[in-house]
Amino acid sequence: MAEENFDIAIVGGGVSGVYCAWRLKQTNPGQKIAVFEASDHIGGRLLSVRPPDIPDMVAELGGMRILPAVQPLVTKLITELNQELPADEQISLYKFPVDEPQNIAFLRGVYLRLADFTNDPDIVPYQLNFIDHGQSAGEVIVNAIEQIVPGITNSNLNEEQRREMAQSAEFGGVPLYKQGFWNVLLRVITGEAYHYAEDVGGYDSTLCNWNAADAIPWYLSDFGVSPEYMGFSNGFQQVPLSLAQLFEKSGGDVRLASHISHITLQGDGFAFQVNGSAATAKKLILAMPRRSLELLTATSPALQDAKTQALISTVTPRPLFKLFTTYDSPWWRNTGYSSTNAKGEPIYVAVQAGRSVTDLPVRQTYYWPKSDGTAATEGHAMLLASYDDGDNTGFWDGLRAKRRQPRALGRDVAQLADPFIGVDDNVQRDELEWHQYKAPRMMTEEVTRQLTVMHSLNYTPKVRNAAYRDWGDDPFGGGWNSWNIGVKSWEVKHAVVQPTDLPLYICGEAYSDAQGWVEGALQTAGYLLAKLGVAPFPR
Amino acid sequence: MAEENFDIAIVGGGVSGVYCAWRLKQTNPGQKIAVFEASDHIGGRLLSVRPPDIPDMVAELGGMRILPAVQPLVTKLITELNQELPADEQISLYKFPVDEPQNIAFLRGVYLRLADFTNDPDIVPYQLNFIDHGQSAGEVIVNAIEQIVPGITNSNLNEEQRREMAQSAEFGGVPLYKQGFWNVLLRVITGEAYHYAEDVGGYDSTLCNWNAADAIPWYLSDFGVSPEYMGFSNGFQQVPLSLAQLFEKSGGDVRLASHISHITLQGDGFAFQVNGSAATAKKLILAMPRRSLELLTATSPALQDAKTQALISTVTPRPLFKLFTTYDSPWWRNTGYSSTNAKGEPIYVAVQAGRSVTDLPVRQTYYWPKSDGTAATEGHAMLLASYDDGDNTGFWDGLRAKRRQPRALGRDVAQLADPFIGVDDNVQRDELEWHQYKAPRMMTEEVTRQLTVMHSLNYTPKVRNAAYRDWGDDPFGGGWNSWNIGVKSWEVKHAVVQPTDLPLYICGEAYSDAQGWVEGALQTAGYLLAKLGVAPFPR
Repeated sequence: MAEENFDIAIVGGGVSGVYCAWRLKQTNPGQKIAVFEASDHIGGRLLSVRPPDIPDMVAELGGMRILPAVQPLVTKLITELNQELPADEQISLYKFPVDEPQNIAFLRGVYLRLADFTNDPDIVPYQLNFIDHGQSAGEVIVNAIEQIVPGITNSNLNEEQRREMAQSAEFGGVPLYKQGFWNVLLRVITGEAYHYAEDVGGYDSTLCNWNAADAIPWYLSDFGVSPEYMGFSNGFQQVPLSLAQLFEKSGGDVRLASHISHITLQGDGFAFQVNGSAATAKKLILAMPRRSLELLTATSPALQDAKTQALISTVTPRPLFKLFTTYDSPWWRNTGYSSTNAKGEPIYVAVQAGRSVTDLPVRQTYYWPKSDGTAATEGHAMLLASYDDGDNTGFWDGLRAKRRQPRALGRDVAQLADPFIGVDDNVQRDELEWHQYKAPRMMTEEVTRQLTVMHSLNYTPKVRNAAYRDWGDDPFGGGWNSWNIGVKSWEVKHAVVQPTDLPLYICGEAYSDAQGWVEGALQTAGYLLAKLGVAPFPR
Repeated sequence: MAEENFDIAIVGGGVSGVYCAWRLKQTNPGQKIAVFEASDHIGGRLLSVRPPDIPDMVAELGGMRILPAVQPLVTKLITELNQELPADEQISLYKFPVDEPQNIAFLRGVYLRLADFTNDPDIVPYQLNFIDHGQSAGEVIVNAIEQIVPGITNSNLNEEQRREMAQSAEFGGVPLYKQGFWNVLLRVITGEAYHYAEDVGGYDSTLCNWNAADAIPWYLSDFGVSPEYMGFSNGFQQVPLSLAQLFEKSGGDVRLASHISHITLQGDGFAFQVNGSAATAKKLILAMPRRSLELLTATSPALQDAKTQALISTVTPRPLFKLFTTYDSPWWRNTGYSSTNAKGEPIYVAVQAGRSVTDLPVRQTYYWPKSDGTAATEGHAMLLASYDDGDNTGFWDGLRAKRRQPRALGRDVAQLADPFIGVDDNVQRDELEWHQYKAPRMMTEEVTRQLTVMHSLNYTPKVRNAAYRDWGDDPFGGGWNSWNIGVKSWEVKHAVVQPTDLPLYICGEAYSDAQGWVEGALQTAGYLLAKLGVAPFPR
């Protein structure tokens, strides 16, 4: 085969990759620009699949929401895309519910409603001191953050001002960026308050020992300032799919199932292999997280210099695990309680939206909304049965195929020896990707057991279909990445975009101020585009 | 320099390496046999250093004890060594105390004495069900194990019989070796009982998701059958040091600060580099754990075949962290309580021996014994201030130099930017290695803060000197290694000893039935010696 030559080769078909591709092609219509994606689909860690038995729900196996109030880039992008897209392909959002007061917290063997944390703190099984008693988990951490960086929780500050405060702050006489978030938290709150915040918050990795100067503004934007999340009626993956489609419409080239390796310098540009065939590019964009960059480094001398490697290693990949299950009916509604309304009439307060939380490995369960954002009240219904991170992903490891096996065998996901046989396994539609991400039988049985305990059921709900994704698997290495202690992220986030003088560029959420968010992917893509003289938005 | 040629080259100066060396040289006195050790001392993860201010104590920065009742190999080895060693170099043991009833458990913000778990279970802050209520943490797990493999806790069984039962057992219709310990535990005990066993037990990694068929007999031998530990009056490192000395006395060659790399096949044997100089060996023994083998693999084609790599990757390194501190006096004695003896006379029950436990990152604190095994009651005294594993090692990561930095710079331990300046820093004796392992200032301050909380003190004890070691650092990767789920350890432990037909051998605790114990190192060394036609013991 003849060697192919590109002006710009983009490796990685996640949001940052296809976003760069679209903008570069718009600005340089005459250039030969291609996106190479190793898997069979565009979107990276955005992966929206429809369950076989529920037409008006989309399981978000990857990223599932945005925070418009503090995420201007993704918000603006959606507006831009909707101006380009035809009427029947518009991206529409719904209000994504999280903490409803009647939802369940099953912690330390005690059943609570979420409202109990603030309304009835004496039954909360954590020995909190008088400062933290009666505070929500988020309030405990926000109060702690205010002690670490006085003034930073002032609501008049914007995101950028908070980041600058944290970056220049000292705590105990040592710059904050040289300290771990866990380390500084334990200096201002008790061990119990820390466990409370972690257990109730639902995540283990957000409060772990990552760079405190990055963790603090990150935590405040996500949890601090009465966050309002928005979900995607047709799935978040619609965003990168639309970008890829616009890129192709303007003459760009999207190559799926195209594995890049062996990147070497050649002339002023690069030679590389696409599924083993030779190609070259004048400019090379690696739109991928740390672990993917490391896998690519193994065969690529062009990435092996000390400076590039040092920049790549400034973050740590953090696993995230998601398991979706569908049922004949939304059985969880019946775990609510009877009450009376303002007029004194009897009402039933159902558990039906947002999430419940537990310290079992399941950790967070979301009662999944319909595509219009409303709760399922009858008929087939879906749970994000488990959403967890940190050590808890290790629990599910024991009930699935080996973590690095699929990549080694050249697959996106591992073949299952013993899959859960869904009721709707025979349902086949062209676009039905659900079956590719089937959960193992033992995993499905175990999540059912834990859901039964967590919801205090006397029966076992029967799963119709089950699908999962663990983003700790190769080539991703993590669902998100966190800045390492001692790293000056405000320098690295710019330096990593072009590590050396060569026309080799890196972008993605991993090296951004909004790690784990599409906003972060767009931020670093914007830095990259600026280097190439391209404005981040068309107008 | 001329190329050196060896009959047998042993890489790694830990127990398994020097033990093989000693026995091989005894059996083959005419052969040229050398041990190559990258660091400046023999012993591997046995590292016994004397504090500068306490002549009759030895800080065990690495392994610290044996379990004679279930560890025949190390017990016999000590007997053998004492027959060879002169009177003033005899290895003497003392009874190593662990759980004393008056010691402290500070868990979930509640102060308990260890006796309270069984004597006053109603004040224990865990919601245990009626089966587990009033049981010790060890009993909870032993009871769980009996449910998983009925009959296995029968005290008439020996170690080997228990292992065979676990290896052939099924649970829930699936072979036990294909399941994780955490997974099967949660099937038979509540989430609360699991947290209780983990928090009180003091370790996070022993109950984690490793191979259940290995974890069960391993747990039973360590915790199950009223364990009696023995410590070493002059430090555990005396065992490998004595072995190395006997090896040298019989004409063997010990090379410290000798870094091996670039192992390639040459003729019927191997070529390799020693600190960059060429050497060859007819037989090559790699006496090292997984992470060390992986570091060596990077430069060594002779290790890069798929079979060897598959065998090496059957275990997971598990970090262990130890921090020792010394004080003017044993302040912890005063955290006991006043009582009366059998005659009704007032007595003071001091906290002075064994360990206390907490769910703070400190996790376990040992009131360190004198060299005769008795407790320090006055004068300078020492704590194993923190002994922890799993996620908690990540807490201390934020207060120290970067994990992989020292190895990259060719050092054993990282140079500290901000060490704790000990009162006795100026004390220098020839053999005083303590100062090499100095703790950072911030780590020492933080452990002091947590000890103060854990012991409910109204003052802050003043540290004289502090030393630490994290065995998760390179080249070790972990303080111990655990068998991965799905691995048939009873096959791998033999196969890994000689992965292919080549005269290349692997041994060490990592691939044994007694992972994390010297017993395991001696077991695999014995398999290796048998392959080479050498009896494990001289007589």
